[in-house]
Amino acid sequence: MEWERCPEKKAKAHKILTLQTFPPNAEFQLGPIPDTNPVLPGTHWKMWHHAIGGELASVPEDSWEIVLLEKHPEMLHLLQFPYNGEPPKRLVTSKAITPNSLHFVRNHGGIPIIDKDKWRLELDGLVANPKSYNLDDLMNESKFPRIEKLVTMQCSGTRRIEQISLYAGQGDEVPQAPWAEGAIGTANYVGISLKKVIKDCGGLKEGAKHLELYGAESYFKNNEVMNYVVSVPWSKVKANEVLLVWEMNGEPLPKIHGHPLRVVVLGYIGARSTKWLYRIRAIENPSLAPVQSKEYLYFNQQVGKHNQCPTDGIQIQEMPVSSAIMSPWTKQIVIHNGKIHCKGWAYSGGGRWPERVELSADGGFSWYAVPNENLSSKHKWTWRNWEMDLPCDVEGWVEIVCRCWDNSLNTQPLNVRAAWNWGLHVTSSAHRISVYSINKSRARTKQRLEKFQRLGVPLAPLTCPEDFQTETWEEYEQFWKEDEPRDVDD
Amino acid sequence: MEWERCPEKKAKAHKILTLQTFPPNAEFQLGPIPDTNPVLPGTHWKMWHHAIGGELASVPEDSWEIVLLEKHPEMLHLLQFPYNGEPPKRLVTSKAITPNSLHFVRNHGGIPIIDKDKWRLELDGLVANPKSYNLDDLMNESKFPRIEKLVTMQCSGTRRIEQISLYAGQGDEVPQAPWAEGAIGTANYVGISLKKVIKDCGGLKEGAKHLELYGAESYFKNNEVMNYVVSVPWSKVKANEVLLVWEMNGEPLPKIHGHPLRVVVLGYIGARSTKWLYRIRAIENPSLAPVQSKEYLYFNQQVGKHNQCPTDGIQIQEMPVSSAIMSPWTKQIVIHNGKIHCKGWAYSGGGRWPERVELSADGGFSWYAVPNENLSSKHKWTWRNWEMDLPCDVEGWVEIVCRCWDNSLNTQPLNVRAAWNWGLHVTSSAHRISVYSINKSRARTKQRLEKFQRLGVPLAPLTCPEDFQTETWEEYEQFWKEDEPRDVDD
Repeated sequence: MEWERCPEKKAKAHKILTLQTFPPNAEFQLGPIPDTNPVLPGTHWKMWHHAIGGELASVPEDSWEIVLLEKHPEMLHLLQFPYNGEPPKRLVTSKAITPNSLHFVRNHGGIPIIDKDKWRLELDGLVANPKSYNLDDLMNESKFPRIEKLVTMQCSGTRRIEQISLYAGQGDEVPQAPWAEGAIGTANYVGISLKKVIKDCGGLKEGAKHLELYGAESYFKNNEVMNYVVSVPWSKVKANEVLLVWEMNGEPLPKIHGHPLRVVVLGYIGARSTKWLYRIRAIENPSLAPVQSKEYLYFNQQVGKHNQCPTDGIQIQEMPVSSAIMSPWTKQIVIHNGKIHCKGWAYSGGGRWPERVELSADGGFSWYAVPNENLSSKHKWTWRNWEMDLPCDVEGWVEIVCRCWDNSLNTQPLNVRAAWNWGLHVTSSAHRISVYSINKSRARTKQRLEKFQRLGVPLAPLTCPEDFQTETWEEYEQFWKEDEPRDVDD
Repeated sequence: MEWERCPEKKAKAHKILTLQTFPPNAEFQLGPIPDTNPVLPGTHWKMWHHAIGGELASVPEDSWEIVLLEKHPEMLHLLQFPYNGEPPKRLVTSKAITPNSLHFVRNHGGIPIIDKDKWRLELDGLVANPKSYNLDDLMNESKFPRIEKLVTMQCSGTRRIEQISLYAGQGDEVPQAPWAEGAIGTANYVGISLKKVIKDCGGLKEGAKHLELYGAESYFKNNEVMNYVVSVPWSKVKANEVLLVWEMNGEPLPKIHGHPLRVVVLGYIGARSTKWLYRIRAIENPSLAPVQSKEYLYFNQQVGKHNQCPTDGIQIQEMPVSSAIMSPWTKQIVIHNGKIHCKGWAYSGGGRWPERVELSADGGFSWYAVPNENLSSKHKWTWRNWEMDLPCDVEGWVEIVCRCWDNSLNTQPLNVRAAWNWGLHVTSSAHRISVYSINKSRARTKQRLEKFQRLGVPLAPLTCPEDFQTETWEEYEQFWKEDEPRDVDD
């Protein structure tokens, strides 16, 4: 549905939405992401679609069918409609290139079902010669040289759950996308540079500085229906860093990822990589469409509902350096021999790459560097996966922390609070997890674990007291014969 | 029920408990203390009583009746049976002396119903002349000088919820007593010094160093039934710091607090102040009864189920210096004029007292001292309540922290982790709360709050986005005319 071409349809939809009363969104606060699916149904989004009716009526159900067809059965469905999902922790970094079925999805509307033979891309606005292309035109290699690029895409909401669980924030995105560490994925894309297409239109007119990108999904905001629209600066396009792609990991672009054609902006947040692209408009200033002007904003810590204005926020384009521990997981009991095996990812936006990953087992006081040979290969636009045996002598609760230094020597703030913001975007702080360390290279611990095994008593749950005596009365009394008394009075 | 006098009854009870299978205690992990009552029923404790039968069969129901009769209707019932309860936050520090009905209760068994005319106290073990007393004997002022003392009593589990919520620990006490900041109370007690009674028995025999204190409640542990028994060192008794009391705040000791006679150990944790006292035995070493030898232990951070032995733990007697913020409460939204009004308590064990209380609104970087005139009066054995307007310019999430310095210049560790221990006792770290600060002395905030009021839109819940535009398009475009562009390319 190309709403932006049909002002009379938009007006009609607005009237329908204004005349009806929809229940308030009750989904503003969440607990941690559970393992079960789906988490949130997206009730109010479905109601809006059904209220407008017509072509929109069956979109929620059609979209869900595509999810079941195209995505891995183990995906964590954060929001059923519009679909948002991330792979489970153990699968996020299982491969350096993410299989399509496991790549995270952050959709802002239902999945448009587009016949690629009828599909056209319009280029207009401040271009010398506005033109329209079909897919064959764009695939014409004599005109537009083919580009293949390995690219990591990341949502600016990645790891948002850490901000949510410590400090509540603006509830607009939270109920749709309470991301953990899986809102990041790496794929091999095939397509062309947008720069060449602009050149084919005779270049930009005087004053044009930005390209507005139109996606065909229906986006609802404040009783208005519209298309998904964002913009990127011409400087980014000119550097050949804005691609139009039709292939993902050797397959035609899946329906859920933007079939037949999407934008891939190298090193920018996923939100700028418009899916189901149907129009590109050259403009003077960044787009006034709400996704660009009023969402994906990075506020300072003192901005909230009681004082915020959109112009207080930095429009988020490149992501800063970040990283995450994918194994072990927080609150896990880890039995080890003095070293805890850790796995994870590291990434930096804007074409910077991870140069060094460091781990701490003491909450960030001392750091161990992941050996270079334990990092996946280095590319300008991708993450690096890593693994390492982290020395840990300490028993009981330890805090494992991970941080990355990129090639510009940027690193991460050390705690969530330092980077907290009202929109709960860009959780760039060092990733911290609490694990309960049991070091069986220690004699007493080894004996105790053997005792559990011998008696057939499970160690878990750890908080349940052991049901055997841990010391005989003889040992107890011997201790007090040898040790000093509890209370002295001389 | 004086189990310790009836070995054959103990053996019979053990047999009953061993021959039956009771469901496992499912209450090892808890969320935060809710406002609703009761929290936990204590099902397995009730089952044990019903299994033994006889005198014990009706104890759970009888005890609950006494709770309803003697305690304030707003008490937070952490455990219905054996009864554990604390006053709600707003009432903890509402008075410097805690009304009896609001004083916290940590019972380890049902409430014994004792006829004070038939009641006797035995003194035996290593005393020169073992004796037995009735209440009139002890109240004979010509023999035992009357003592009146204002005393703060504190459970070693006070503020345990902070440890529970960050790092799980041993689940034995947790499901019974997941205390917040209310497991502390101050009362005026009337009674006599135990030292005088020992003297009346001709003093201690050679080698006696401790006094074992027997309470009449039935205590269940590992399929055994026993009385509640702990011990205190003779040095503490000799200093006249162990009292036998029958009056609390001008009333006879309430049933739930130990009627007719209880111990009050000045400056020690509440666990040593045995209720329903019926026997005192002079002994050589600290009691081997489980409450003294295997519970109320303070382990180091690396001790847990996988390696602990009772002799690793320090038996907890005096509490270290501590404090708590009772208002505002964590996660609260506070609208203020540049100063946040704060209230709370401060206490130090062992006869030390709070000399200075300090508050921070920035997570513990800079500190403000509570003015002396805002602290309640100073006593050797009591807490001090305090209140203060804490300067806070910052908006958004702030962390208010409270710490106390006692007269020995002891102060509190700054975070929960520093004082975490497997038994989740002695949460002595500086109390930290997160509040959302809205400073209406700031012009834009003031205007925004007025806008909410004018439009009749509630500010709460804070996380729900405001449903009006916070900036006009004219203002928005004006900003971008005056400000530098989002992306520069020169």
